[in-house]
Amino acid sequence: MTIALGDNRYGKSGIHLVVVDRGARDHTLTDLRVDIRLEGDFDAAHTAGDNRAVVPTDTMRGTVFAFARTQPATQPEDFGLRLARHFVATVPAVTSADVRLRATPWARIGGDHPTAFLADRSVVRTAHARVDAGGAYVRGGIEDLKVFKSAASAFSEFYTDEYTTLPPTHDRMMATVMTADWGYRDSTLDWDDSAAAVQRILLQAFADHDSASVQHTLYAMGEAVLTQRPEVTDVHLLLPNVHHLLVDLAPYGLDNPNMVFVATPEPYGVIEATVVRTGT
Amino acid sequence: MTIALGDNRYGKSGIHLVVVDRGARDHTLTDLRVDIRLEGDFDAAHTAGDNRAVVPTDTMRGTVFAFARTQPATQPEDFGLRLARHFVATVPAVTSADVRLRATPWARIGGDHPTAFLADRSVVRTAHARVDAGGAYVRGGIEDLKVFKSAASAFSEFYTDEYTTLPPTHDRMMATVMTADWGYRDSTLDWDDSAAAVQRILLQAFADHDSASVQHTLYAMGEAVLTQRPEVTDVHLLLPNVHHLLVDLAPYGLDNPNMVFVATPEPYGVIEATVVRTGT
Amino acid sequence: MTIALGDNRYGKSGIHLVVVDRGARDHTLTDLRVDIRLEGDFDAAHTAGDNRAVVPTDTMRGTVFAFARTQPATQPEDFGLRLARHFVATVPAVTSADVRLRATPWARIGGDHPTAFLADRSVVRTAHARVDAGGAYVRGGIEDLKVFKSAASAFSEFYTDEYTTLPPTHDRMMATVMTADWGYRDSTLDWDDSAAAVQRILLQAFADHDSASVQHTLYAMGEAVLTQRPEVTDVHLLLPNVHHLLVDLAPYGLDNPNMVFVATPEPYGVIEATVVRTGT
Amino acid sequence: MTIALGDNRYGKSGIHLVVVDRGARDHTLTDLRVDIRLEGDFDAAHTAGDNRAVVPTDTMRGTVFAFARTQPATQPEDFGLRLARHFVATVPAVTSADVRLRATPWARIGGDHPTAFLADRSVVRTAHARVDAGGAYVRGGIEDLKVFKSAASAFSEFYTDEYTTLPPTHDRMMATVMTADWGYRDSTLDWDDSAAAVQRILLQAFADHDSASVQHTLYAMGEAVLTQRPEVTDVHLLLPNVHHLLVDLAPYGLDNPNMVFVATPEPYGVIEATVVRTGT
Repeated sequence: MTIALGDNRYGKSGIHLVVVDRGARDHTLTDLRVDIRLEGDFDAAHTAGDNRAVVPTDTMRGTVFAFARTQPATQPEDFGLRLARHFVATVPAVTSADVRLRATPWARIGGDHPTAFLADRSVVRTAHARVDAGGAYVRGGIEDLKVFKSAASAFSEFYTDEYTTLPPTHDRMMATVMTADWGYRDSTLDWDDSAAAVQRILLQAFADHDSASVQHTLYAMGEAVLTQRPEVTDVHLLLPNVHHLLVDLAPYGLDNPNMVFVATPEPYGVIEATVVRTGT
Repeated sequence: MTIALGDNRYGKSGIHLVVVDRGARDHTLTDLRVDIRLEGDFDAAHTAGDNRAVVPTDTMRGTVFAFARTQPATQPEDFGLRLARHFVATVPAVTSADVRLRATPWARIGGDHPTAFLADRSVVRTAHARVDAGGAYVRGGIEDLKVFKSAASAFSEFYTDEYTTLPPTHDRMMATVMTADWGYRDSTLDWDDSAAAVQRILLQAFADHDSASVQHTLYAMGEAVLTQRPEVTDVHLLLPNVHHLLVDLAPYGLDNPNMVFVATPEPYGVIEATVVRTGT
Repeated sequence: MTIALGDNRYGKSGIHLVVVDRGARDHTLTDLRVDIRLEGDFDAAHTAGDNRAVVPTDTMRGTVFAFARTQPATQPEDFGLRLARHFVATVPAVTSADVRLRATPWARIGGDHPTAFLADRSVVRTAHARVDAGGAYVRGGIEDLKVFKSAASAFSEFYTDEYTTLPPTHDRMMATVMTADWGYRDSTLDWDDSAAAVQRILLQAFADHDSASVQHTLYAMGEAVLTQRPEVTDVHLLLPNVHHLLVDLAPYGLDNPNMVFVATPEPYGVIEATVVRTGT
Repeated sequence: MTIALGDNRYGKSGIHLVVVDRGARDHTLTDLRVDIRLEGDFDAAHTAGDNRAVVPTDTMRGTVFAFARTQPATQPEDFGLRLARHFVATVPAVTSADVRLRATPWARIGGDHPTAFLADRSVVRTAHARVDAGGAYVRGGIEDLKVFKSAASAFSEFYTDEYTTLPPTHDRMMATVMTADWGYRDSTLDWDDSAAAVQRILLQAFADHDSASVQHTLYAMGEAVLTQRPEVTDVHLLLPNVHHLLVDLAPYGLDNPNMVFVATPEPYGVIEATVVRTGT
């Protein structure tokens, strides 16, 4: 029996790139955090300290900045694909590249200011481009979207055992901080348009659903996207259950008709699933 | 020489209150984090372990929840005042109460959904109510508002010494994450209306200012509020300078005409000042 | 083509359990954060809102607290295994359970105080127990261990291309915040003893290694554990490269003989690999 | 009535300086985060965009790095004083300088490794040096020290009103994450020695105190320092009450003899006071 290198990858994280296009009267702002991971034949670096195949993570950083000067970076999916293709095509040892991007949207101050912007911190748009021997793969996504439903949410008739104390409810508050990512059939598309549409559909499905559980709403959200957006192959959702507990006001001689809640940070439920297409 | 108790205060932090008004077809959502601090005659508790004057922080929590059932909580300034007045009026040892609130705004999903909401995480609205022997004081505020200017920002002709390496610039990116709070002349007002107006003025002044420095823009922002809003007595601003460094692309044979920047989290400049009214 | 449920799991996160054993003169303190994830046949919950198979995450929380009263919780690997076995054995829909634990070590104040403790925040001990149809699996681990080497670290003779600007170095500072986890051959063991030994070996290998790169040191660390601890099947390491940049003091007329550094939070390199046993 | 500049200050935050002394066989590591704030006559910068008096925050950063090459930085109180004196003495507009430092202690790996170190993340040592027209002032401090008492802690016979639900207790868990800072009589001292002694006294007082409340223990901690350390003028303590709630196990048919607790992050009590010397 011997010791050997198993799965491995490396790269640069937290490259915070801001590109300002000042060509027109109205400037535009692109704000991306870029993470790069490469896989390939890096055994000798690990086992023998032989760095000849190793592209430094500092070079990855430089590549991102140079590409931002010569390539359009406004659509993160597209910019990620260009970077991933570059590493696989040019660095001999590399067999796959994953580029993940987090984009902060910026709005114009006052709605139309040409050169002053306000960050939209309500959502982060994400993208993940992967290139390997099998081809190129793109996933879009969103993070940090906090939503709340004050009606049409129940949780009852669940499995019970000796450790169950939760009462069933037919009218509860539901809140989550949505993380979603979804696969694309192709690697060319109007990414901005598709990402905006998927975000809208997810929000609307959350808002309109008559929910029997977080699982139930999660599935409805994924199903709505797959039904309306043929370019999407699957939707992965991660929905923490941000608990809002009804406060017991009886000690103060008061009732509480589903009005006063305390939001508790932990513990919290987490519901995660992928909704997929099946068949031919 | 003896040992004695000096300045002291205590209270409850992180009371995350959510009030849902479901009386009309369109529900409303109030989301507040409440911090309470009391001062008064608490010497015996410290020096002798005598708790008879001490109102437990757990009681403060209960008071917040009970008030949320019986008092309107939609305007944080007003809700904070009611709480502060209660503690000073009813707890014998208490001579002053400070109530600080952080409100997360929520928008309706799709613009008009009656019962589903999306958190606006781009800004936190703050309020501070203080009641003491001298009366009642209210400050409004905002936090976490991240803004960026791609034009009309310079920094030059500054003081230099042997440790200066910064080149003067007549065209730099300016970014900050704004924290502001302002004093009010009175303790009755349409708080929502005033807070929205001040936020709008601060943003517009930041956007339109021809800036010689962060200090210069800070003052212009405060001055704009005091000029336009007679109900405001002073404006305190805390503006971290979120540095965007121009990337040197020369090693890659590329120019960089104020286009590609790296945003760096630290170190960062911090500019803080209060703009006041003087005279009679 | 139809739409269907793909991979899915759910559970409770952030159950912060503290168990105090006050039976002896010297009390003992166990401080665990517990995360539970279950997989199984939960299709109907997602697609039809039928909760009959769903054990609430609130019940998972209750189970953790009840087990903490009746079972020993001092060794996280063991406590996790008991919980994972419970869910698979008793909840009909469940086919696998993953229980992840993060333990904060506490030291006695002054070295020997019987009832007062100081948290050791320099490391978090982790454990992961999984039970499924194939059996029971245990992984130990550590997180948040920040280490620094001021000698015996080089990075040179690496791959270069047009985006390379990093100079080779034969004497650099190396720093990382170690995350490691390792597999165990069996599910019975003196877990405390093994975890302490692995942590000691990882630290010593980091300290003593003559490093050609982070990859090179990572492999040496994993190899040292596998060589010395037969109960361990593999070691997974995640090593961010906490960059310490030599400050250019020439503008101030000073040299800098590898003495004054600035630690930069981002961007940062990340090196990740598993070291395994192979052969028979 | 006119508008004018009120209180103002500015500076650089988050200067993360690491100094490695490799002169002896055993290297030494100094790890400091430095924040600088200056006050003075900066009116023209704010009101007229006239920067002639403004020393750039970038220059402050450069000064810190240059001083780290030419001055000893191992004792943060002393390094802070040198920096503060420099700005007041050399920059004409500056009337006061505050330098705040946060030092991470590092231990030698294995207890005696000459060139490999493990960060002690259980405590941050702080220092604050201020120089103004009145002289030089130094405060030492600690942050992030998390402590727990499983005996000798009560809270009873407190003030009650209609919002009180907390039951009195004669045996509760007490936990806090200590922040303390203390004034020094002089500006020359063996700072390392004094800071270590104060930390030891605070911990021992916390451990040994028969506590009627957090206030009561806070005072005992401050009193112990002032009694034993004549160089200290006052002790300011900020003690959040990290609540550990006894879990109700009755629904599972179990008792809970002060054994199983849940630690809750919010809301939390906060107790803050300064203990001072009085008289001649």
